[in-house]
Amino acid sequence: MAEEVKLIGSSLSSFCTRIEWALKLKSVEYEYLEEDLSNKSPLLLQYNPVHKKVPVLLHHGKPLPESLIILEYIDETWKENSPLLPEDPYERAMARFWAKFGDEKCLMGALGACRDQGDEKEKSIESAKESFDFLEKQLQAQGKKYFGGERIGYLDLALGWIPLWVDVMEEVGCMKLIESQRFPLLHQWREDFMESSPIIKECLPPRDEVLQRFTAYISHLRSLAALNS
Amino acid sequence: MAEEVKLIGSSLSSFCTRIEWALKLKSVEYEYLEEDLSNKSPLLLQYNPVHKKVPVLLHHGKPLPESLIILEYIDETWKENSPLLPEDPYERAMARFWAKFGDEKCLMGALGACRDQGDEKEKSIESAKESFDFLEKQLQAQGKKYFGGERIGYLDLALGWIPLWVDVMEEVGCMKLIESQRFPLLHQWREDFMESSPIIKECLPPRDEVLQRFTAYISHLRSLAALNS
Repeated sequence: MAEEVKLIGSSLSSFCTRIEWALKLKSVEYEYLEEDLSNKSPLLLQYNPVHKKVPVLLHHGKPLPESLIILEYIDETWKENSPLLPEDPYERAMARFWAKFGDEKCLMGALGACRDQGDEKEKSIESAKESFDFLEKQLQAQGKKYFGGERIGYLDLALGWIPLWVDVMEEVGCMKLIESQRFPLLHQWREDFMESSPIIKECLPPRDEVLQRFTAYISHLRSLAALNS
Repeated sequence: MAEEVKLIGSSLSSFCTRIEWALKLKSVEYEYLEEDLSNKSPLLLQYNPVHKKVPVLLHHGKPLPESLIILEYIDETWKENSPLLPEDPYERAMARFWAKFGDEKCLMGALGACRDQGDEKEKSIESAKESFDFLEKQLQAQGKKYFGGERIGYLDLALGWIPLWVDVMEEVGCMKLIESQRFPLLHQWREDFMESSPIIKECLPPRDEVLQRFTAYISHLRSLAALNS
């Protein structure tokens, strides 16, 4: 393996899946090191002493954490195949903006809605939907099949947790977030993204395993919330 | 003004100062629009409907929010003068990583230590210092005068809140965060950064105004914390 690329990841983490998508779309060979997050390895603690989280990309022994930063690094390092970020500086900047928004508002909002119970739940669901409204408007404003334009790019990979993980969150949280009536374009994007390349489905973890892990995780979050209330 | 660059900002916000530094280092002429954050303008709400925060850069009428994203945009758009990000993809990625860390851990940690009172305070101060430890180690590992190397760059601007705002937080919070004994290199960097270009001091707001605003802000945070406890 001439490039010496390794990925420390967890197969059920959407943050790791986005890195695997990028490496495979770029045809970069890599060694995958599965991390047990309940018993973190000395390797992870050595290479990500700041956050102690996956994913960490190792390239020629140099470690790089944080999935959105890794995506940009992959795009800048292996430029030839499948460019991920747009070339235009303004479009690049807005792709970064929406990727961050996706993680901080949509993903965190969906997670909160999934966790919350009782009176809070309806408010959290509506709040999460209001974040997804911005993504819907974004697809509408740009009028392209994907967030990246006519083919998938950085922002599609960054939002690539939506198809599988929102579906799982909807089941665990007994709720509907991405209704086709309110989000027709996001709904369509979800299908198009899944069909955009065989690589997309190939890297996704099995739904039943994600569901099982997520059920335990939400139960843990609810216990914490009960302790703090 | 051929470039039609406008900056919607608040003169007491360190997130806005970093943009002014970048524009001036690049010799980009711009119009500055001061925002009253206690009574947000229709302009701000129009151009940053998602977060409703400053800074927002307007370039040929196109709005861009989020200060770290704006810094990268400025660097990619006006390439000739004062390059901000390193050229090497790994160094670029790590600059992005530490800038994000500076905002999320160091700045938020310092703010928490400033706000906290009673038993919590000592813990918050030590936790903030542990974040600054990483920056100290970073300066030590790279052995250069600035985070950007031999001259200031993106990461120096991103951490440029430290000299003035930490100083103010230390006064308002009756604490010491960046002691010269524990942080000799960060201490030296703080002085070097301030002297690196006349532009740095020129864009800083008057200390007494920052102190006054910050005192009110911390008092507000303490009332909120008292309500929630």
